[in-house]
Amino acid sequence: MLSELFAHTGNAHLVGITGAPGTGKSTLVNQLARYYRNPPDGEVQRSVAIVAVDPSSPFTGGAILGDRVRMRDLSGDPGVFIRSMAARGSLGGLAHATASVVQAFDAAGFEVVLIETVGAGQAEVDVARLAHTTVVVEAPGLGDDIQAIKAGILEIADVLVVNKADRPGVENTERALRNMLQLAHPVPRVFRAQGYFQEQEEVETASNELPLWTPPVLRSVATEGHGVAELAKAIQKHRDYLDESGDWGRRERARFKTELDALLQDKLVARWRNKVPASKYKSVLEQVVERQISPYQAVEALLDGDRYVW
Amino acid sequence: MLSELFAHTGNAHLVGITGAPGTGKSTLVNQLARYYRNPPDGEVQRSVAIVAVDPSSPFTGGAILGDRVRMRDLSGDPGVFIRSMAARGSLGGLAHATASVVQAFDAAGFEVVLIETVGAGQAEVDVARLAHTTVVVEAPGLGDDIQAIKAGILEIADVLVVNKADRPGVENTERALRNMLQLAHPVPRVFRAQGYFQEQEEVETASNELPLWTPPVLRSVATEGHGVAELAKAIQKHRDYLDESGDWGRRERARFKTELDALLQDKLVARWRNKVPASKYKSVLEQVVERQISPYQAVEALLDGDRYVW
Repeated sequence: MLSELFAHTGNAHLVGITGAPGTGKSTLVNQLARYYRNPPDGEVQRSVAIVAVDPSSPFTGGAILGDRVRMRDLSGDPGVFIRSMAARGSLGGLAHATASVVQAFDAAGFEVVLIETVGAGQAEVDVARLAHTTVVVEAPGLGDDIQAIKAGILEIADVLVVNKADRPGVENTERALRNMLQLAHPVPRVFRAQGYFQEQEEVETASNELPLWTPPVLRSVATEGHGVAELAKAIQKHRDYLDESGDWGRRERARFKTELDALLQDKLVARWRNKVPASKYKSVLEQVVERQISPYQAVEALLDGDRYVW
Repeated sequence: MLSELFAHTGNAHLVGITGAPGTGKSTLVNQLARYYRNPPDGEVQRSVAIVAVDPSSPFTGGAILGDRVRMRDLSGDPGVFIRSMAARGSLGGLAHATASVVQAFDAAGFEVVLIETVGAGQAEVDVARLAHTTVVVEAPGLGDDIQAIKAGILEIADVLVVNKADRPGVENTERALRNMLQLAHPVPRVFRAQGYFQEQEEVETASNELPLWTPPVLRSVATEGHGVAELAKAIQKHRDYLDESGDWGRRERARFKTELDALLQDKLVARWRNKVPASKYKSVLEQVVERQISPYQAVEALLDGDRYVW
């Protein structure tokens, strides 16, 4: 994004909402947006941007469909803006593009940016890293080995919601979540950017006078609007916690570190590319395919062999 | 891996097996391994390595549990080796570590390497890119928006299996898969490495006299062992197709290109790191956090500002 715009970021509350397919998280995101636009008496209305990220679909079918459904609900309200992002090319590219869009909404003055991701893999963890507050949506009875999947997501959850709470098995899901939370929390939250200087720098840990944040486990039935107000309150409570504890700043720093490193990497590769002829690269690759040299030897050949490049 | 070992790779049939949680793909992988070890009369026994990759779980709980279950089935047979990989750090790191382990099994002489991945995101696509043959496992009735998820995976599927085929809804799942296949296939298969020289080079397409490969849609009930022999045959048929069409070589080339680029990137970053003091990096990062400069300006400061580095 433009550097001029960047100076105007840092005000929006970035809320990540993630969960496996079938949890109804899109509906929940819609309801949350509607709540912010039409709050009950005594609460302030807020402008909302929704960024719907689909890391699994190189086709955009799902995401576009989601948009259509939403537009019917929320269209005509200038305080709501919706943008879909689908994976084109690499995952890193998606996280990067999402970060730019989120920053643009932030600079444009949206007070809340809801970043919705599908699934429960590293992709979602990467996207969630953008957020100040991460909401993980579950639903009763989603499959046998779903528990194993959840482990990674729980590490990043600030608020947990069991949606479709009118379905059988909701108590089991809640219990499983609470058990897993006990394993993962409360421990001092570590803000570990995947930074290139990680070993050299102190890893920043949340050390403050406040008790550590314990993710609440909520229930909702998004299709009926039940539990939406409670979710909005829990999100606000987490934001207040971030402000008071100083974690807001720590999260920001970890986030920028990740972004900076990704940009550095891109730039370093681009510089190298400009100096190595494609024919050279191709002939070295061919030697790897023929098993004459290993990929590691190929890298040596492409870098040190051409020392003049540097 | 050691360059000496690398020279001995290229013989194993690398088979990726992926699918959403709850499809029973681990059981199917076990059964497939058992089939290769105890084939029916007239077929040759083959040694099998299983690499179980879990991109979603920074904890290793799930993967380790999977191992235990498997060990009971297949332990004591020196022709089977099982290795679990869980995500530690970045996704790229996992794909890279998996590639090394797969190559080690290949060099060690295992005839079939089954690479099992959980889920349906970019992580799985990256890992599947390692494989010669990719099997996508589905199951009836896994959720509302699962269809959207599948789109990305279908692009990489060489063989499709509807497991748990004794459950209701199997015809619907098969029909949905066939419909999606019609959208995605048959088109000339493009072996597109995410190469740095992609724009400059011709993208290699499969152009040969053979008709294009159409992924078969099979049924199985892995817990009962049903459909396992048919799956093994389809995998072998795909391997024969790769050999005859020349696609084997194209896949190898695309795979090495991806690996080579990842290594190049790591090396470029490492070189840069060795030349920039951590204190400099830290002060630039701080300016970003304070919104004094944008991440893009920070990169400029870290590269061009220190021109002497280069």
